[in-house]
Amino acid sequence: MFPKNTWYVACTPHDIAAGPLGRQICGERMVFYRGEGGRVAALEDFCPHRGAPLSLGFVREGRLVCGYHGLEMGCEGKTIAMPGQRVRGFPAIRSYPVQERYGFIWVWPGDAAQADAAKIPHFDWHDNPEWAYGGGMYHVKCDYRLMIDNLMDLTHETYVHSASIGQKEIDEVPCKTTVEGDSVITSRFMENIMAPPFWQLALRGNNLADDVPVDRWQICRFTPPSHVMIEVGVAHAGLGGYDAPADRKAYSVVVDFLTPETETSMWYFWGMARKFNPQDLALTDSIREGQGKIFGEDLEMLQRQQQNLLDYPERSLLKLNIDAGGVQSRKIIDRILAEENAVHSLSASALASA
Amino acid sequence: MFPKNTWYVACTPHDIAAGPLGRQICGERMVFYRGEGGRVAALEDFCPHRGAPLSLGFVREGRLVCGYHGLEMGCEGKTIAMPGQRVRGFPAIRSYPVQERYGFIWVWPGDAAQADAAKIPHFDWHDNPEWAYGGGMYHVKCDYRLMIDNLMDLTHETYVHSASIGQKEIDEVPCKTTVEGDSVITSRFMENIMAPPFWQLALRGNNLADDVPVDRWQICRFTPPSHVMIEVGVAHAGLGGYDAPADRKAYSVVVDFLTPETETSMWYFWGMARKFNPQDLALTDSIREGQGKIFGEDLEMLQRQQQNLLDYPERSLLKLNIDAGGVQSRKIIDRILAEENAVHSLSASALASA
Amino acid sequence: MFPKNTWYVACTPHDIAAGPLGRQICGERMVFYRGEGGRVAALEDFCPHRGAPLSLGFVREGRLVCGYHGLEMGCEGKTIAMPGQRVRGFPAIRSYPVQERYGFIWVWPGDAAQADAAKIPHFDWHDNPEWAYGGGMYHVKCDYRLMIDNLMDLTHETYVHSASIGQKEIDEVPCKTTVEGDSVITSRFMENIMAPPFWQLALRGNNLADDVPVDRWQICRFTPPSHVMIEVGVAHAGLGGYDAPADRKAYSVVVDFLTPETETSMWYFWGMARKFNPQDLALTDSIREGQGKIFGEDLEMLQRQQQNLLDYPERSLLKLNIDAGGVQSRKIIDRILAEENAVHSLSASALASA
Repeated sequence: MFPKNTWYVACTPHDIAAGPLGRQICGERMVFYRGEGGRVAALEDFCPHRGAPLSLGFVREGRLVCGYHGLEMGCEGKTIAMPGQRVRGFPAIRSYPVQERYGFIWVWPGDAAQADAAKIPHFDWHDNPEWAYGGGMYHVKCDYRLMIDNLMDLTHETYVHSASIGQKEIDEVPCKTTVEGDSVITSRFMENIMAPPFWQLALRGNNLADDVPVDRWQICRFTPPSHVMIEVGVAHAGLGGYDAPADRKAYSVVVDFLTPETETSMWYFWGMARKFNPQDLALTDSIREGQGKIFGEDLEMLQRQQQNLLDYPERSLLKLNIDAGGVQSRKIIDRILAEENAVHSLSASALASA
Repeated sequence: MFPKNTWYVACTPHDIAAGPLGRQICGERMVFYRGEGGRVAALEDFCPHRGAPLSLGFVREGRLVCGYHGLEMGCEGKTIAMPGQRVRGFPAIRSYPVQERYGFIWVWPGDAAQADAAKIPHFDWHDNPEWAYGGGMYHVKCDYRLMIDNLMDLTHETYVHSASIGQKEIDEVPCKTTVEGDSVITSRFMENIMAPPFWQLALRGNNLADDVPVDRWQICRFTPPSHVMIEVGVAHAGLGGYDAPADRKAYSVVVDFLTPETETSMWYFWGMARKFNPQDLALTDSIREGQGKIFGEDLEMLQRQQQNLLDYPERSLLKLNIDAGGVQSRKIIDRILAEENAVHSLSASALASA
Repeated sequence: MFPKNTWYVACTPHDIAAGPLGRQICGERMVFYRGEGGRVAALEDFCPHRGAPLSLGFVREGRLVCGYHGLEMGCEGKTIAMPGQRVRGFPAIRSYPVQERYGFIWVWPGDAAQADAAKIPHFDWHDNPEWAYGGGMYHVKCDYRLMIDNLMDLTHETYVHSASIGQKEIDEVPCKTTVEGDSVITSRFMENIMAPPFWQLALRGNNLADDVPVDRWQICRFTPPSHVMIEVGVAHAGLGGYDAPADRKAYSVVVDFLTPETETSMWYFWGMARKFNPQDLALTDSIREGQGKIFGEDLEMLQRQQQNLLDYPERSLLKLNIDAGGVQSRKIIDRILAEENAVHSLSASALASA
């Protein structure tokens, strides 16, 4: 239950630096590599000769070479050459539209004809001297929508991340959810509170006192298919909070790209783009380390929640105020899925009546 | 295929000392914890909010708090509070009758209305200065009834436990099985034999010579649903055996509580209650260590037996004299299962005709 | 999809030296052991008493003793004795024809009445002072026929084994496949090339220069059900190649016995018989080590190929010139399978009309 005519983050340039990468996305086994001229390509990870995974091969002069018998694939999925064999008439395998942007490789698992690079969202923070970015990736055995729920309702920070970013004020201050077209925004503003440990680290990282009251904000923004950007930060109290001057606050965007692997597993690309002290590489490292540890705390909870839901399929879940962000996001996903299915049915019936 | 309207050992107080414990019993995922006033409680391990396992949470002021979003459960399965949310109208989850007795937490997985603490069997050896107890728990991937067979036919000691409690005389001396109501008793008395290593240890533990002939006894007693208490011991030969004076024998009860997890896996609570030298804690430790090692020897055999039976479901097993204890015990279980099903059908048909 | 009325390699004498060995072959769980007079025997690995695996037992005076309750099996599958029980009337379990030959234990998983030791192929290299043999075994999670394909098309050496036995000339020189009765032969002869690292080792092992041009040959021979013997070697160039004098070449036979475990897993007995410098035990060791490492390189490829084929069952594979050896071998297997099924159907219909 994932949209397919859309862009997902597949991997990073680093993942394909040393050779091809095999990765299942939206139920399809794919191989990612750099082809001719260093351009990224994605094919089915299935050699048309004997079914070997192409990701066990290597790239030679821009062509993906099968590591079993040396068949050479072009980035369109056609066999180009094979030692001692005529390759004309070899069945083509599927190729997937790919784009390299914002430090990620993006893939379009659906109908290639509809793939449009302009549909990749824009991110200010990439390749911008005012910003610094660090992040990582986790494989999580849960439906990607459970992760959307998780990220659109940050009350869980009080419980799952009690030692780092959680604090009781998150529970105490209500959040507000709005829908703007295909975006869902859930926001919470806390005033005159003490910063929890992670945000003390961030304040120090911007050369600010960490033991004075702060205003804290969390603005979660879902956009389809499964991106969640969260503006987060703290400012010394009483200076405008979110709107305080840059040198009196620590302002960041939590970056979450959720890529379905199967119906019940996903690739979780997480990171933090910060708009303070961007040249401090040691700070980038310590934030990445802290965030990685914090986000790792969600995994057991989500995976065991998934297991419970699989074991008790008849149970329906509650939808409370705090769940509004996830509920609205799922509505948008459901509408997109319905549209994809309608088009699919239409094509099928047009075909049938032709 | 396990009775559900009965008490099973679920865990020990130690298992819930640091926080809630999640454990599947008779196919149901349960969470055990100490609630108000330190009273033990058991609920479904499924938060009514979003399906998270409650066993990942914590206890605060006698209430089980979900570790995901802070929902607070009462020990009756009703939601009591949740930060910033009205909890009236939340669906209740199931609670299970529990009792703390004899150093164990007992649970009744079936119809709560029938749960009666008086049905927990009585054990002399608990909290009794004449006795000492030590034990442990194993998770075993087999039908609990294979373990009943194992414990009601101790000829396997000669083979599985040849280096500790086995000896050829077990094979040579016939056993006798009788049924008394819902109890099955299989007994064997061996006279004027040499004690095997484990019993030499026990004799020394009671300050008795370990190199003289002994009389040895094994009296296995099954009671439903799956308790097997085995009176075991050795006495210096010719002094009355089982009835010899306490200072001329080493007399113990092997304690076996078998709790089904699924149809083909179980929790095995094993221990030994001894009625000699009870103050010697070092002796308790060395007996527990020895017993743990011996009982661990059964696991591979039972698990691979289970695998064989699953792979060859059409094969019927032989029922020999030595198997009488297990066969009779299974008859009692089958009768209880039939009664549970009959009541169930009756309720269903009463409901249908109402 | 494996022939059953045929001999497969089950294990080596070493595997049953310390006690019984349990191993699944052609879907059947078997136990192998040395019975009376040291004669090898194979039975179902299922005790007729309670279904315990007999392979957890031991051998006493030529009888396999069940490790659970001491039941004693004869090598024909009949229960011979059991302590304190009458064993007459015990159901027999299946015994399998076995032979010990050429340093292996062979088993016939099909109809015992058809088992004929004369059908085990002859191998010159066993117990012959002109030859030395070394080998090992791998468990591989793939259909044994994927391994036949692998061994009957050595172009994969260029890719999978590029650092040891691969070289571009294998790709450049066409191979030739012929069928002789039930044998399939695929051969390739390369002239005046440089030896790759493994063959340099072999040349030095026969006290020959390793830095001069050589002629190299590969003659793969499939015989049913799944044996692949490959004559391999190099000779200093221009001296007749395959027919060069023994002291100017390094001549070996790669020995491959493929034994199905299930439809998608197998036991791979591999080795090398060499006809040069046979007394050099250190050379035997270093060749075995090198071959083990090289053959280990195939495992990931074959296992992931198998996984791909299971995930995409509707895809058909290409059959190119280089695949002729595997294609012809599979035709012979298919014919044998059809014959086995025809006989089976005939027996069944004869039975039905009787």
